Amino acid sequence: MFSEKVVKSLEKSSWIRAMFEEGAKLARKYGPENVYDFSLGNPFAEPPKEVLDSLKKHVTSGERGTHKYMNNAGYENVREKIAKSLQKESKVELSASNVIMTVGAAGGLNVVLKAILNPDDEVIVFAPYFVEYNFYVDNHGGKTVIVPSDTSNFEPDLKAFEKSITPKTKAVIINNPNNPTGVIYSKEKLVEMAKIIEKKEAEQGDIYVISDQPYSKIVYDGAVVPSILSIFKNSFVVNSFSKSLGLAGERIGYVAASSRIDGIETLMNALTFCNRTLGFVNAPALFQKVIYDALDAQVDIEDYKLKRDMLYENLKRLGFECVKPQGAFYLFPKALMEDDVEFVKRAINHNILLVPGSGFGCPGYFRISYCVELDMIERSIAAFERLAAEFK
Amino acid sequence: MFSEKVVKSLEKSSWIRAMFEEGAKLARKYGPENVYDFSLGNPFAEPPKEVLDSLKKHVTSGERGTHKYMNNAGYENVREKIAKSLQKESKVELSASNVIMTVGAAGGLNVVLKAILNPDDEVIVFAPYFVEYNFYVDNHGGKTVIVPSDTSNFEPDLKAFEKSITPKTKAVIINNPNNPTGVIYSKEKLVEMAKIIEKKEAEQGDIYVISDQPYSKIVYDGAVVPSILSIFKNSFVVNSFSKSLGLAGERIGYVAASSRIDGIETLMNALTFCNRTLGFVNAPALFQKVIYDALDAQVDIEDYKLKRDMLYENLKRLGFECVKPQGAFYLFPKALMEDDVEFVKRAINHNILLVPGSGFGCPGYFRISYCVELDMIERSIAAFERLAAEFK
Repeated sequence: MFSEKVVKSLEKSSWIRAMFEEGAKLARKYGPENVYDFSLGNPFAEPPKEVLDSLKKHVTSGERGTHKYMNNAGYENVREKIAKSLQKESKVELSASNVIMTVGAAGGLNVVLKAILNPDDEVIVFAPYFVEYNFYVDNHGGKTVIVPSDTSNFEPDLKAFEKSITPKTKAVIINNPNNPTGVIYSKEKLVEMAKIIEKKEAEQGDIYVISDQPYSKIVYDGAVVPSILSIFKNSFVVNSFSKSLGLAGERIGYVAASSRIDGIETLMNALTFCNRTLGFVNAPALFQKVIYDALDAQVDIEDYKLKRDMLYENLKRLGFECVKPQGAFYLFPKALMEDDVEFVKRAINHNILLVPGSGFGCPGYFRISYCVELDMIERSIAAFERLAAEFK
Repeated sequence: MFSEKVVKSLEKSSWIRAMFEEGAKLARKYGPENVYDFSLGNPFAEPPKEVLDSLKKHVTSGERGTHKYMNNAGYENVREKIAKSLQKESKVELSASNVIMTVGAAGGLNVVLKAILNPDDEVIVFAPYFVEYNFYVDNHGGKTVIVPSDTSNFEPDLKAFEKSITPKTKAVIINNPNNPTGVIYSKEKLVEMAKIIEKKEAEQGDIYVISDQPYSKIVYDGAVVPSILSIFKNSFVVNSFSKSLGLAGERIGYVAASSRIDGIETLMNALTFCNRTLGFVNAPALFQKVIYDALDAQVDIEDYKLKRDMLYENLKRLGFECVKPQGAFYLFPKALMEDDVEFVKRAINHNILLVPGSGFGCPGYFRISYCVELDMIERSIAAFERLAAEFK
């Protein structure tokens, strides 16, 4: 009656949603203060002062036309500013013509995939991965190919990657820093990946690297996210200000395509066309202006770091194996039993809500999101202790 | 290399865009004050006071969480308020659970089409029509079927409509008031259409009526847009605040599905899922709050009416045939020669930019958008006089 494919997807209801419902149930039963919900990735940090000041300025300016349509690619001055910022970081020459403003990174990914995919083209992702990629690729007639990571450091397994490339491979999505592991792929690993891609491209045509990097400013310990545009010739940066500026609900992001891509002019027209015809039309106008004013600002990273450290250190103390992440706001420890889904159910008995690694294509692990109040983390430690004790 | 389908669509570059480029060229040559650009539908009116006050309130409130994610369907209080407003108008019982907030009407249409279409399902539209519908339907694997209107009043030709229904017909899009004619389909015509649909549904299953009505508040002379939800059992209202509140660039709208649709609960889950996975994720947060505060407000309609009257009366005086529109901000007069594309080129010689009816699936006519300054209309009259004189 409705779309069969969509209805079938609904039946496999997502883990994160299941946890959300479980959380509401537990909160009713035990009181919200006794439930430790680490299942959601709703950025905790409020927008920085630069964002709030810019909003006030534009909302009180009385300027005509602030809320009207603009070019489907977005305001030129905003795109130019982003281009120059990326150029500085990558040393790849970029201008406004290489950037389109999008409805967040999720919108940007859909725009890129629609613009490049032909029927049954394959898109490689590295597990554990953000499972929404499956839907984005499928929306535009592509097929997702999942390649494992090296679980000792959660960097891509490049041998498996090379084997997974076929003549239908059109793109590779990397998510750096990664959701759910928080790991930043190293420059060395990405350079090695680029060599594999270039070798294959010589045989079969261009393969596009799409870097989904909404967490690129949520990094700790002086870590730096390597510049995708400088490493991969045929690359896109897809970004959003959801995390870096605390604007997740406002749906503002961008796509930047490397000027080194063959046919870049056609490609930019294709991206603009897809932004329009997928129904985004343009990125929200007011928040484009805010990005112009606050591009270099960022949310309070120290607060996230404090939370990471508290959880990471306590989990290690309790015997969990976990790669210490240098970015994003997730931990991805190994479950204390093989069956991660069963482990997550055992955690629910202690009022702890987690997401099983299976939900990210990586069974045996679980995700903790620390976009939460510090005192909830503090209160949760005793519950984690009781959970761990079960497996001693 | 890129998506072949997208690249092919780019080659058929749109009329509106071609006019935009022509306009820029003419403005450079003759000065912008000597070019009469009626080609764009960028709403002219500024947001009303209620919108600006609400924006100021939320931006200065200091309330935490204003810009965070919410449920993919949108804030419940906003959805409830819209539901009750539609219930009042339609007498169909509706609640928040029947409404999802969307990235404008274009986003809403994509969400609905993805949620209901199976491969090769057919979607009927009435020419002249907003040609973006072709792309929206194609995005989700459907096929657009074009049914002509009665050009004496630009209401749907229901005999042709009935003949066009096949076992693959899944939906009908009506755009009321219509872009490009400005005509409001009458209640009588829609009731007659509903009877045809119900007869066919008894044979072949549900057919959904999707009412795309961003111009529903841009109406003149006391006209009322008939309530789709009260006339069609299986119906959706897709709306945006682009025109009614002057917020085109902010991408805020909604989808309301009739509670009378069989399987409505699954359908609403499907819509929410599609809103998420198409990459919209949620409608922009701040503007959802603004809609809550300003739902019943509207832009200055009298200003649009003044412009409609000035253009309509002058064009009639010059011998143009034109149905007097009661809504939207377009006129759709008959060209003074059979070939509308050639006629539009002749108009360019007088620095008048129009869009040929062929661009809306209705050759022999042209569209004038009066989202422009009044004094440009005044200055243009002499140019229209010279144009009309060529055909005397």
